Amino acid sequence: MSTFHLLHEDGGSAARLGRLTLAHGEVATPAFMPVATHGSVKGLTPVEIRATGAEMILSNAYHLWLRPGCDVIDAVGGLHRFIGWDGPILTDSGGYQVFSLATLARVTDAGVTFRSHIDGSAHFLSPEDVIRVQERLGSDVAMILDECPPGDADRTTVSSAAERTAQWARRAVVARTRADQALFGIVQGGTYLDLRIESARTMVSLGFDGYALGGLSVGEPRSDTWRVAAATAPHLPRDQPRYFMGAGTPADLVHLVGAGIDLFDCVLPTRLARNGTLFTSQGPLVIRHACHAADPRPLDDACECYTCSRFSRAYLRHLLMAREPLAVTLNTLHNVTYYENLMARMRAAIVTNSFAAFAKATLLTSSMGGEGATSCPG
Amino acid sequence: MSTFHLLHEDGGSAARLGRLTLAHGEVATPAFMPVATHGSVKGLTPVEIRATGAEMILSNAYHLWLRPGCDVIDAVGGLHRFIGWDGPILTDSGGYQVFSLATLARVTDAGVTFRSHIDGSAHFLSPEDVIRVQERLGSDVAMILDECPPGDADRTTVSSAAERTAQWARRAVVARTRADQALFGIVQGGTYLDLRIESARTMVSLGFDGYALGGLSVGEPRSDTWRVAAATAPHLPRDQPRYFMGAGTPADLVHLVGAGIDLFDCVLPTRLARNGTLFTSQGPLVIRHACHAADPRPLDDACECYTCSRFSRAYLRHLLMAREPLAVTLNTLHNVTYYENLMARMRAAIVTNSFAAFAKATLLTSSMGGEGATSCPG
Repeated sequence: MSTFHLLHEDGGSAARLGRLTLAHGEVATPAFMPVATHGSVKGLTPVEIRATGAEMILSNAYHLWLRPGCDVIDAVGGLHRFIGWDGPILTDSGGYQVFSLATLARVTDAGVTFRSHIDGSAHFLSPEDVIRVQERLGSDVAMILDECPPGDADRTTVSSAAERTAQWARRAVVARTRADQALFGIVQGGTYLDLRIESARTMVSLGFDGYALGGLSVGEPRSDTWRVAAATAPHLPRDQPRYFMGAGTPADLVHLVGAGIDLFDCVLPTRLARNGTLFTSQGPLVIRHACHAADPRPLDDACECYTCSRFSRAYLRHLLMAREPLAVTLNTLHNVTYYENLMARMRAAIVTNSFAAFAKATLLTSSMGGEGATSCPG
Repeated sequence: MSTFHLLHEDGGSAARLGRLTLAHGEVATPAFMPVATHGSVKGLTPVEIRATGAEMILSNAYHLWLRPGCDVIDAVGGLHRFIGWDGPILTDSGGYQVFSLATLARVTDAGVTFRSHIDGSAHFLSPEDVIRVQERLGSDVAMILDECPPGDADRTTVSSAAERTAQWARRAVVARTRADQALFGIVQGGTYLDLRIESARTMVSLGFDGYALGGLSVGEPRSDTWRVAAATAPHLPRDQPRYFMGAGTPADLVHLVGAGIDLFDCVLPTRLARNGTLFTSQGPLVIRHACHAADPRPLDDACECYTCSRFSRAYLRHLLMAREPLAVTLNTLHNVTYYENLMARMRAAIVTNSFAAFAKATLLTSSMGGEGATSCPG
């Protein structure tokens, strides 16, 4: 299944250094997984994904099940061979996608009935189906089906979603059959700490290989996100990996690593790359801005990625303005490298028990804001 | 400027093997230049362009002059540094683009007045302007401004366009100042052999570094294209490079190499790649077809490109159907590799004086049709 070695705990924070061993290789944690929703990190070849420093990627069982379907992926020999990535893959179950993308989603204890966001076709997925799909895909880490209420849901809704997720979790544990695939539980409970802790205890009692925090980064204030993660993490086993689903900005990652989280995924670096918002050591940069039009400098002097070592801001802006496909590749390569470098710097800080100082210094720089990008001067 | 070494002439055809030495390196001819209209071969990094076997690429002075403009490219240190390609670059002058893309193009002896296809702004380019623009870009090979009549133009129109092109060619020779940039003349004359030969003689008398055939592949029957090229080539200097502008299908390339042409460019392999029509040793393949949906085989067993060595037809189809940007990269990488391999095979056949046999065998296979792609069986 999986082994998690807790290598070191930071002296001044809850941050942890670990090594996660999965069927397709090892992952140094804390780790950021670039998102390959449909089986491709948008615009990057597997060679380029590897060049960013990423050791593990995330794909989405819901999307792959709808298109191209498990039969196709089976025919090619499983997900890894299908997408040409021989490292570890975590598949999200699709709970979040069903509630956010599918129309007419209807939840009962049996599972989820919904219409495909692609062609409107009707589908049903039970907690057992979701395990079966991921076992067929052959990902290294599978996620249980969870009910993911919106960020502004009331306590009753959140509580009932957490309870149903717990029921589904029990059924997932019974349904699993693959010894070479890790299965992670998902803690729900919104921003209600008592519900979170109850959900964490229930999940832990079921004996998963790792535990995710779900239902966060869904619209709640960011300080709540960090607070809930910090309060929930201590209720999860010290010697098992903790995964925060769908975060976040660089600042989020620093806060959440400091709260004791080990694994992350987010579409932010890849999506912002396609829109031309690029992370740099001097803060985020909107490459469309006219001030970059004739700028011969690399995007980020402090970055050694292919994009920064070979191309100017002027060229990156030109590619975006001319809608050249290469813009997606070069921008994504840089943004994902930025995230992976940030993780590597956090791992180095944990080793030297200096994570708190690193976090403080890092959060002070504008680069960690992650929301508003710096304007052009003048 | 440039040196062309004619290394060998095929014993049974007009095909020639050569080596073209330019400011940024050597090119084995016959050579195919992938097209980087806006300074990027769509979807490929320079590393990937190189991996296809391409030694020289084509970019477009008209497009770059409109966007991002010469000031921007100057600021970054010239076209090569701007686009991150350190090998030879040929820039097309933009004559063809002015007539095909720009609206309200008006030609006088002075030059061309037209409106930008991007924003409708009014512009004027003289034959001297076109030289100045390309000298600023710093391409290895510049092209003169030519008047390019449509494929169905009558003899009077074609004749007057050839005459004006000759006048402009004289002015281009006077205007050029860079010793490190080759300048090619362009032979016009439509499908009228006497006009072609007259245009060739005029161009040769002006003493260019190489000669292009322009105004072909613009809608005339393909047999006319080949016939005109074969009849014109002998009127060009044996010891200088001959460039056929804007061709073509694999079959076109085989015919035209056999006619004694040395250099080619065409958007076909890159454009078809984006639409999912992929060249293989068994014929063109439309990857969207349902028969490829669960096919674990590589696109082409005979191809060693990254796409064919790592991915299945099923995955390539999935990427295209899901509109993943990686589809552009992987498909383009393959199609350009197919073209570059075809050129390498033709060069090898010339060395052994077996080009005619190679051409006959190659043109017999369906792969060389290049137009209709094979359907799925059943």
